[in-house]
Amino acid sequence: MPDLRIMVQKYGGTSVGSAERIKAVAERIKTYVKNGFSVVVVVSAMGKTTDELVSLASQITAQPSSREMDMLLSTGEQVSIALLAMALHEIGIDAISYTGSQIKVLTDGNFTRAKIESISTDRIMKSLRENKVVIVAGFQGIDNEENITTLGRGGSDTSAVALAAVLRTRDCEIYTDVNGVYTADPRIIGQPIKLSQVSYDEMLELARLGAAVLHSRSVEFAKKHNIRLHVRSSFNYEEGTIVMPKEEMMEKYVISGVTAKRDEAKITIRDIPDRPGIAARVFGLLGENKIYVNMIVQSTGKDNKASVSFTVLKSDLDRAVKLCEGLKKELGASAVEAKQNIAIVSAVGVGMLSSYGVAGKIFQVLSEQNINIEMISTSEIGISCVIDDVYAELAQKVIHRAFIDMEQQ
Amino acid sequence: MPDLRIMVQKYGGTSVGSAERIKAVAERIKTYVKNGFSVVVVVSAMGKTTDELVSLASQITAQPSSREMDMLLSTGEQVSIALLAMALHEIGIDAISYTGSQIKVLTDGNFTRAKIESISTDRIMKSLRENKVVIVAGFQGIDNEENITTLGRGGSDTSAVALAAVLRTRDCEIYTDVNGVYTADPRIIGQPIKLSQVSYDEMLELARLGAAVLHSRSVEFAKKHNIRLHVRSSFNYEEGTIVMPKEEMMEKYVISGVTAKRDEAKITIRDIPDRPGIAARVFGLLGENKIYVNMIVQSTGKDNKASVSFTVLKSDLDRAVKLCEGLKKELGASAVEAKQNIAIVSAVGVGMLSSYGVAGKIFQVLSEQNINIEMISTSEIGISCVIDDVYAELAQKVIHRAFIDMEQQ
Repeated sequence: MPDLRIMVQKYGGTSVGSAERIKAVAERIKTYVKNGFSVVVVVSAMGKTTDELVSLASQITAQPSSREMDMLLSTGEQVSIALLAMALHEIGIDAISYTGSQIKVLTDGNFTRAKIESISTDRIMKSLRENKVVIVAGFQGIDNEENITTLGRGGSDTSAVALAAVLRTRDCEIYTDVNGVYTADPRIIGQPIKLSQVSYDEMLELARLGAAVLHSRSVEFAKKHNIRLHVRSSFNYEEGTIVMPKEEMMEKYVISGVTAKRDEAKITIRDIPDRPGIAARVFGLLGENKIYVNMIVQSTGKDNKASVSFTVLKSDLDRAVKLCEGLKKELGASAVEAKQNIAIVSAVGVGMLSSYGVAGKIFQVLSEQNINIEMISTSEIGISCVIDDVYAELAQKVIHRAFIDMEQQ
Repeated sequence: MPDLRIMVQKYGGTSVGSAERIKAVAERIKTYVKNGFSVVVVVSAMGKTTDELVSLASQITAQPSSREMDMLLSTGEQVSIALLAMALHEIGIDAISYTGSQIKVLTDGNFTRAKIESISTDRIMKSLRENKVVIVAGFQGIDNEENITTLGRGGSDTSAVALAAVLRTRDCEIYTDVNGVYTADPRIIGQPIKLSQVSYDEMLELARLGAAVLHSRSVEFAKKHNIRLHVRSSFNYEEGTIVMPKEEMMEKYVISGVTAKRDEAKITIRDIPDRPGIAARVFGLLGENKIYVNMIVQSTGKDNKASVSFTVLKSDLDRAVKLCEGLKKELGASAVEAKQNIAIVSAVGVGMLSSYGVAGKIFQVLSEQNINIEMISTSEIGISCVIDDVYAELAQKVIHRAFIDMEQQ
C-alpha cells in the first residue's frame, strides 16, 4: 500500500457555526479527498457554544470546579464532530468522528489548561487506511485516569498541530474567519497588509502582544515540531498566511505586525532603596500568587533609589496591588501606584533587527502626535510601548503608516 | 468501614431543565446525603436538549449515521452531569461526574438502541467511599471498541436500574415531572387515581399501551433484578408510585390504568384461503423487515376463508402495506386494506383476572356511546380495543369512570 498523503486541517468555531457552514466545510474537505489526500480534521465547538456553556455554569456557581468545567466544555466539540461526519456522509464521503478519549489524547491533569503528552495514531491510521476522513474533537484530551481535560485558549489549534506532529506531516491548515495574518487589526487600520509568510517567532510575538488569530501555544508546538501552519479562511479559497521557519521564508517584512493590548494595567513601586534582590522579591511573590507579569522596567533615580514598573492583567490588578502594598515597608518604597487605562502598543518583525532606526522611528511618530510613552520594552524582534489607552488606535495607525512607508521605499 | 447505604436516583429532562431546576435537584440530593445515604445520581439531558440536537442533525442530513447520532446525542447528558456536580459543590456537597465511558458502561454495538452488558463499579465505589455523590450520565455507554452508544428511548431509566442492580441496592428513585403513575392521562381524565403501588407486569402493559411515565425496558430490567422503582416528582416531596413485585403489593386495584395509543395504524388482509402457515408467512416477512406488529386478530369467515388484521406503527404503514400487497397473490387474498385513524384503547390491571365481567363491562360502556370496536385483544392483565380515533378520549373517559365506580362499590 502506498504511503498516505495526510492533510491535517482545523476548522474554528465560526467555520462550523451553523448547519450551512458545516455543509460548506464538508464540501471543502471533499475537494481534498478527491485530490487524493487522507484528511484528518480537527474542529472547534460551533460558534458561541462554548460561551453558552460557560454562561450556564455561571448561572449555577461563580467558582466551577475545573474538572467539571472540562466535562462541560468538551461537549461542544463533540457536537461538531458528529455533525461534520454526518455532513460528509451526506455528500458521499466516508468519515468517522473521534473524541479525545477515543484516540487517547493523553494530557497532564491540569484541567482547563492541560498539556498534551501523547496521542495514539493506531485508530486514526486504521480509519485513514479504510479511506475514511478522520474527524477529531479539538481542545480536549484525557488524563491518565480518563478524566476529560481541555487545553485552554487556542486548544483546537494545538490539537491540530499535535496531530500533524504525531502523523509526521509537514503542513497543517488552520481555517478561520479571516484571510490570514495581517500587519494590523483591519478594524483599526483600514488596509493592513496580509502577510504571505511569517516566522514562528514573529507569530509568537504577535500572539503575545494581542493578535488573536493564533494562540501562542499552538505556534510554539508548530515551531518545536517544524510544522508549517497555513492560516486561511474557510469562507473563500484564497491563499492565507504560512507560519514557518524563518530560514525558509522567501519574503521578509521590516515589521510583521502592529498590535495593541488593552487587557493589562500598570503598577509602579516608587523609590526603593536600591540593593540586590528587589526584583526577585517582588516578582517571586507575584509568581507564587500566580499573577502573570508581562512588561517590566526598572530605573534607577537619584539617591540610589529605584522605581520598578510592570504590567499585569487588569483582572489581577487588585490582588497584585495588595501584594505590593504588603511589601512596601520591607522594601522601604515610598508608594505603590496603579494605572488601569493603559494600552501596550507593539511593533513586531524579524526585519527590525537588520533595519536601522526602527525604534527611533516609532518614538518619533508617537511624539509627533504628542503621545507620551510611559514604558518601553524591547525584545529581539519587537518593541512595545505603554501609552495612555485613549491613544491606542492613533498610535497603531501612525506606527503602521510609518512602516508601510519604509517597506515601500 | 461500615457498609454504605446506597441510593440510586434518576432525574429526567424536566427535572434538570434549567439552572434553577438543577440547583433544586442538588438541594434534594443534599437531604439524602445529610441522612447518611451514599447517593448515585443518573441524569438525563436538560429539557429539550435532545430534541434540539436531533433538529441540528436533521438540518444536515435526513439519514444520519447511527454511530454519529449517538456521538451527538450523548453530549446532552454530559452537560447535565457537569452542571449538577457544580451545583452540589456550590452547596458544600462533594460530588464527581462520570460519563458512560468513564465507568465502563459496556453495551452491545447497536447504536441508538444499545443494550447494557456490564458496568464497572470500581470507580463508583471508590468515589462513594470518599463521600462523594456520584453523578452518572444516563442513556449512554460504550461498545467494546469504545464507540459511544445510546440506549434508546427511556435509556436513562435503564441506566439507573442497571446501576441499582450492579450496586446491589433494592430501591431506585425515578424523578420526573408527574407525581407518579396514574390510572389515566390527567389531560383526558380530570381526576385519575394515583397508584401507590403497581406491579412490574402492569407497568409493562401500561408502558406498552401508551403510558409514557416509564419505558418498558427499564421496567423489565427492574423486574429481572427485583429492584423497586419509586416513580415520583422532583417538584415536590410527595410519595409517588412504587413499581414492585406483585407478591409484595399491599394494595391492588381492579385496573391500574386506562390508556390510548394513537401512533399505530391497522392493516387487514381479506379473504385468505385458510391453510396452515399464513400467519407465519405474513408476520415472518414483516419481522424480517423490522416492522413491529402489535395487535393481531385472525378470524375465519365463510368458505373457509380467513381475514387477518393487525396494527403497526404509522411510520411503518407504507412499507408494511407494500410488503402485504406483494404477498397478496401468493396468499390468494382478495384485498389489503389500511386504516390510519385508529386508536388502541386499553385497560390494564392484575385485579381484572379476579374480577368477573371486566371485558363485558368495557364492551357495554363503549356500546352505550355507539363506539364501534374494530379489533379486540386480551392479555392476562389487559384488554385492548381498536376504535376510530375520534372516540379515543371519550372511550377512555367512560371506561375509566366505569372502573372507578367498580372500585368504589
